[in-house]
Amino acid sequence: MQDQTSPGTLLGELRAQPPLVHCITNFVAMNIAANVLLAAGASPAMVHAEEEAGEFAAIAGALTINIGTLSSAWLRGMQAAAIAAGRAGKPFVLDPVAHYATGFRRAAVDRLLELGPTVIRGNASEIIALAGGASRGQGVDSRDHVEQAEDAARLLAREHGATIAVTGAVDFVTDGDRAARIEGGSALMPQVTALGCSLTCLIGAFSAIRPGAPFEATVAALATFSVAGEMAASKADGPGSFSWCFLDALAALDAATLDRDARVRAA
Amino acid sequence: MQDQTSPGTLLGELRAQPPLVHCITNFVAMNIAANVLLAAGASPAMVHAEEEAGEFAAIAGALTINIGTLSSAWLRGMQAAAIAAGRAGKPFVLDPVAHYATGFRRAAVDRLLELGPTVIRGNASEIIALAGGASRGQGVDSRDHVEQAEDAARLLAREHGATIAVTGAVDFVTDGDRAARIEGGSALMPQVTALGCSLTCLIGAFSAIRPGAPFEATVAALATFSVAGEMAASKADGPGSFSWCFLDALAALDAATLDRDARVRAA
Amino acid sequence: MQDQTSPGTLLGELRAQPPLVHCITNFVAMNIAANVLLAAGASPAMVHAEEEAGEFAAIAGALTINIGTLSSAWLRGMQAAAIAAGRAGKPFVLDPVAHYATGFRRAAVDRLLELGPTVIRGNASEIIALAGGASRGQGVDSRDHVEQAEDAARLLAREHGATIAVTGAVDFVTDGDRAARIEGGSALMPQVTALGCSLTCLIGAFSAIRPGAPFEATVAALATFSVAGEMAASKADGPGSFSWCFLDALAALDAATLDRDARVRAA
Repeated sequence: MQDQTSPGTLLGELRAQPPLVHCITNFVAMNIAANVLLAAGASPAMVHAEEEAGEFAAIAGALTINIGTLSSAWLRGMQAAAIAAGRAGKPFVLDPVAHYATGFRRAAVDRLLELGPTVIRGNASEIIALAGGASRGQGVDSRDHVEQAEDAARLLAREHGATIAVTGAVDFVTDGDRAARIEGGSALMPQVTALGCSLTCLIGAFSAIRPGAPFEATVAALATFSVAGEMAASKADGPGSFSWCFLDALAALDAATLDRDARVRAA
Repeated sequence: MQDQTSPGTLLGELRAQPPLVHCITNFVAMNIAANVLLAAGASPAMVHAEEEAGEFAAIAGALTINIGTLSSAWLRGMQAAAIAAGRAGKPFVLDPVAHYATGFRRAAVDRLLELGPTVIRGNASEIIALAGGASRGQGVDSRDHVEQAEDAARLLAREHGATIAVTGAVDFVTDGDRAARIEGGSALMPQVTALGCSLTCLIGAFSAIRPGAPFEATVAALATFSVAGEMAASKADGPGSFSWCFLDALAALDAATLDRDARVRAA
Repeated sequence: MQDQTSPGTLLGELRAQPPLVHCITNFVAMNIAANVLLAAGASPAMVHAEEEAGEFAAIAGALTINIGTLSSAWLRGMQAAAIAAGRAGKPFVLDPVAHYATGFRRAAVDRLLELGPTVIRGNASEIIALAGGASRGQGVDSRDHVEQAEDAARLLAREHGATIAVTGAVDFVTDGDRAARIEGGSALMPQVTALGCSLTCLIGAFSAIRPGAPFEATVAALATFSVAGEMAASKADGPGSFSWCFLDALAALDAATLDRDARVRAA
């Protein structure tokens, strides 16, 4: 049964009216993220330059920012876009990739946090470090478990008035009041580069559908990823085949199947 | 039967003497465009910096410019390359991605148009807007039909002395005097990101083979894409599998099959 | 049988303790290189900005630099990273893509060579030109055979105190004293863009495992690529399917199979 905020309902709405999603993401993720959005039914646009990022963010349905391959020039574009999205009331999803790794990254994320992200998605190490804790992240990889980041996520949610998604074997989402865990996916997913970055963009797509309900939008995006991941894993022989099986699965996934197979539990 | 300008004849020549194609394209398209050129038999080179783009354009057989993920620094490289290509008499193919979306993009395309593109490829919304019409494009997606852009294409062809390709379900190509429609392809193609950008690069490859015949070169590139697209669609289960089936089909396509299966009609 | 420096031994160690590999590579290679490292068992990180590249290089296990899509801003990041890697005693692998093509590229490679690469990987044309010879390279493609570059490789190895890898149908590796040839792979490999760039990153991963033995690390990386390439070729129907079959094969390859199937001969 689909209620008004079920993942399947939101996926159906996304496909009925494909949202334009403004993605400022890293060079590794560019192609796979765009393909993930297309397979899900959304319309991706990669626009990063300071000269136009603000103008474009106001047109799009949502903005996603990922600092994976950061530079000062790109940071200026990110800030211009986030400011414009804020003024236009558009959702802004932040992915603070490996923000703990260098001083440049930490300072950049501090500035982006000031611009009021609607949703923040990260792995456990990123979320723990963002809340001021001691993470064990190495490079872009988490070495902490999702459960260890739950308190940090609740703290961040309240501090920033944002929805926080910690993704891993079992995902955790909270807006400070409510929380949910989403099971599913596949152990092959972390072996495919930039799937997490692509998920950030997909959260943007669902957020554009329900700008007033970022918690539900985030849960829907994570559930979509998890169900498509399970479908792909049943066909794949390794990370190479997983990648295209996942896109085929995302494109084939319908609203009813999503609601039937999604494993979302209140936490 | 292959005549001297048939798609198959040009494909055979391309494979016999792989042209070096200088591509300045967007971050999303970089990898798939290079793989498309390699599968077709050409030699791609992605070189964008102002410091060397002019020098490189003079060496290459053709230049292609796509403004997908534009910035001021890249625009300077594009201009240097287009000027050098013009001086060296090398074909220059322009792909004005979503040029209507922001002021920055519109101004950039105005400058690139002044540098005399040999071929311009776009979707219907892009071509309509380029001719000064009211397009309904959203982000990088066309919301207009190819037929609606035919008059705009003829107008642009005469105004710029260029070959104009409007791509969609059925492609339309004109040099102002002649015109052709190319059928084929697959509904999965717009679900794979940057295939249109890759096609622009392939037009560059064919243009390098016949620098004096941009209309025929463009028709050959579009026919190659359409036939390979049909071959791939017969094997693919979705956009993920389509992507690699398309590369396999492009690599397997021979001149005789191309001429047999291409559906090109004078318009 | 696995000795202490056999490819299989090093692959086993890499998987037991995944090295963080700092890759500054080109836009075409970003995604496939990251996927190659993940499939092999390493942890890739793409970090290029001058603002943080030095800080990051000191954290990582090895640094790889590829000048494919070079610009002045990126060159500054490359230099900062190479200097920091040198100070921290971390291996630094250089891939001088098409360095002979423009003056900008030649000057950039001269600067990077001064920073003391541990390993240099290139195709025959690149290695010949690097040693001051007359190469026949066109764009990024070699038009010379590996055997023609062997003397150049030995010369470069002694001049720079580095391990030199010339890759092609049969690879050649030398540190000036010792030399080896590695057979295997597939004729489809040059039809997939950026596999050579990805191999450079994989040499970085193996070098991080054995910082004191760059010759053995390079041989191990090349043997891994060659064996996985043969496995993939037995399943692939073209360059599109080869690409994902290769990632599946890399992920499935175990230490014993690698040592059994690797064809490494002293030269």
